[in-house]
Amino acid sequence: MQNIEFITFEDILPVLRKMQRMNPLIHCMTNEVVQEITANVLLAAGASPAMVVANQEAEQFVRNASALLINLGTPYESRLVTMRSTVKSAKAAHIPWVLDPVAAGGIPWRNEIIKEFVSFRPTAIRGNASEILYLAGQGSGGKGVDSTASSDQAVNAAVELARQAQTIVVVTGEVDYATDGERILASRGGHPMITKVVGTGCSLSALVAAFIASSADDPLFAAISCCSYVNKAGEIAGSKSQGPGSFHNHYLDALFAL
Amino acid sequence: MQNIEFITFEDILPVLRKMQRMNPLIHCMTNEVVQEITANVLLAAGASPAMVVANQEAEQFVRNASALLINLGTPYESRLVTMRSTVKSAKAAHIPWVLDPVAAGGIPWRNEIIKEFVSFRPTAIRGNASEILYLAGQGSGGKGVDSTASSDQAVNAAVELARQAQTIVVVTGEVDYATDGERILASRGGHPMITKVVGTGCSLSALVAAFIASSADDPLFAAISCCSYVNKAGEIAGSKSQGPGSFHNHYLDALFAL
Amino acid sequence: MQNIEFITFEDILPVLRKMQRMNPLIHCMTNEVVQEITANVLLAAGASPAMVVANQEAEQFVRNASALLINLGTPYESRLVTMRSTVKSAKAAHIPWVLDPVAAGGIPWRNEIIKEFVSFRPTAIRGNASEILYLAGQGSGGKGVDSTASSDQAVNAAVELARQAQTIVVVTGEVDYATDGERILASRGGHPMITKVVGTGCSLSALVAAFIASSADDPLFAAISCCSYVNKAGEIAGSKSQGPGSFHNHYLDALFAL
Repeated sequence: MQNIEFITFEDILPVLRKMQRMNPLIHCMTNEVVQEITANVLLAAGASPAMVVANQEAEQFVRNASALLINLGTPYESRLVTMRSTVKSAKAAHIPWVLDPVAAGGIPWRNEIIKEFVSFRPTAIRGNASEILYLAGQGSGGKGVDSTASSDQAVNAAVELARQAQTIVVVTGEVDYATDGERILASRGGHPMITKVVGTGCSLSALVAAFIASSADDPLFAAISCCSYVNKAGEIAGSKSQGPGSFHNHYLDALFAL
Repeated sequence: MQNIEFITFEDILPVLRKMQRMNPLIHCMTNEVVQEITANVLLAAGASPAMVVANQEAEQFVRNASALLINLGTPYESRLVTMRSTVKSAKAAHIPWVLDPVAAGGIPWRNEIIKEFVSFRPTAIRGNASEILYLAGQGSGGKGVDSTASSDQAVNAAVELARQAQTIVVVTGEVDYATDGERILASRGGHPMITKVVGTGCSLSALVAAFIASSADDPLFAAISCCSYVNKAGEIAGSKSQGPGSFHNHYLDALFAL
Repeated sequence: MQNIEFITFEDILPVLRKMQRMNPLIHCMTNEVVQEITANVLLAAGASPAMVVANQEAEQFVRNASALLINLGTPYESRLVTMRSTVKSAKAAHIPWVLDPVAAGGIPWRNEIIKEFVSFRPTAIRGNASEILYLAGQGSGGKGVDSTASSDQAVNAAVELARQAQTIVVVTGEVDYATDGERILASRGGHPMITKVVGTGCSLSALVAAFIASSADDPLFAAISCCSYVNKAGEIAGSKSQGPGSFHNHYLDALFAL
């Protein structure tokens, strides 16, 4: 059994304030479905989103960004070409980047792409339990984009993946875990309604990039801080909501207020 | 005059519950504008959305989906190639699929594409009055994506189109109608504010796919059940809303609560 | 010092009513991130959005539209080809069009594209201060898509750009200005929360197109009328909101109610 350190919202407040003071510019290369909520989550949290996608500018743009997000939710060939060169450029410029391996385990073509990006050594990988289990070689994927396992079931897989890929792995679910392969930090909280709003996971990955950008000295603690912040906002939103429509708004309001 | 059977929300409750128990996975290939609301409507209703768009995976992915949605709101060549092969794959695997013929009648190029997809024999076509009138050979299209005719004016066209194309036709408007060319089922209700929120029609088509997937034995009744459910949610949302912004949220909340 | 005429909401009411009576059809070729909010803002205001993007139909579609919006937020080569031919078609048919030069000044490749579209002589250009300063040759761009200058600092640049490009220039910020290179009209108001919701600037550009379409006799006054309307809606929304999530909804509600 691994030793797991639970983090509270009070623990992470200095990291949250540091992120908000920095107002990091996050270059998001994300899927077709969640671009608006990703931008709105970053804005509400105090970061600045920029969705630059053309081959002719993304490679250059990322060098002035604070961090990069690569989300493989709706990959297609021309976009992948740009994603590859942008990751290369980010790495050359020592810009941190986060990989969101959407629906890993589902389709062989997508699996190969996701593994290719894992091999580029992202600063962090943020996924659900099914995705992380698959990438650690311990599962065969979820149902579409949804997880069919609990995050508790994926803790050991997360540690294993973090070691294999030499990265930070964040697995989110009822409890969120972040690990660098040695330490395991965890955050409880949030609200189940969040799974009924598309893009809350994807935008969390963008936010992990913002936190890591502003706390380069301790990216593992930055990653779990992000989860704790989002869990707090989810709790507040859940207590005020009648369903996923009102949850969406209260969630953005709470991210902004905190 | 055709015999029209009006359905109430109480009539359709068992079908709604069956859909929610099944939690069908809906493969959505939809337009650029409405991807987020389409996913959120499916989630709120109890289905699972998946937007898989690449040629290399859509054909394979659809075989494990419960149903497929093809929405031709923003067609372009590379996406159409994938849509064609995905429909072919869905048909081979006996996966039901719904066609949303957005803005049929407007532009010759688009009209040819829409007619091509109609010729692939969708399980159901869901459109507004202008679109259905055009496809039945009785009109010349609406204003952009909006209808310039009432659904009452399109009932006969819907029957005619259902017979010609050997499919179920759903024409929505102030009254919603579903027909297989023989029977005509109808649902009253809803709220006019729904026309002020983009994607409510498009996401309804996705939801029709979810209902048909979970009631394969009676797809006609499944289709009108979907309309009745959405009308009920629209009424609830309309009674609580001050405008299209609050309507959007109350609508998602109501879909979730029902 | 230039003479600046401040306009109040009462001044612009007849122009707003004219736009709502006309219900102009706005052909939007906009970026990937803001398509939904752009459509929803147009619908709430009383206009009709249409996002037609394929090469084979956009050129033809625009001839029946009331106005065209070109937003260069996420340009890429195939979309640019269509944008160019659609602008050409709009100009040939004397359809007014608005250019939104997103993030002008940031990246050389994008800057060249934006300057190319400016050279096509749009009816109006709507940007933030950093974008307008750059296009007038007086600045080097903002932070990603956000301005790093105030609109007050860009008034002279706006006049200069309007003269150079022979167009109307609208620069928005704490105060909004519209100029044709001779007169400068201005509108105060709005709410700072609007900068925390993605797409409020981009959708404002679409709305400028709607106002200009319905007031062809005085496009300068139409442009500032649009700003005044949006400022009023922003004030109402700001007074009711707890954060950017609720602001977004109250803003759409207020646009609809006014």
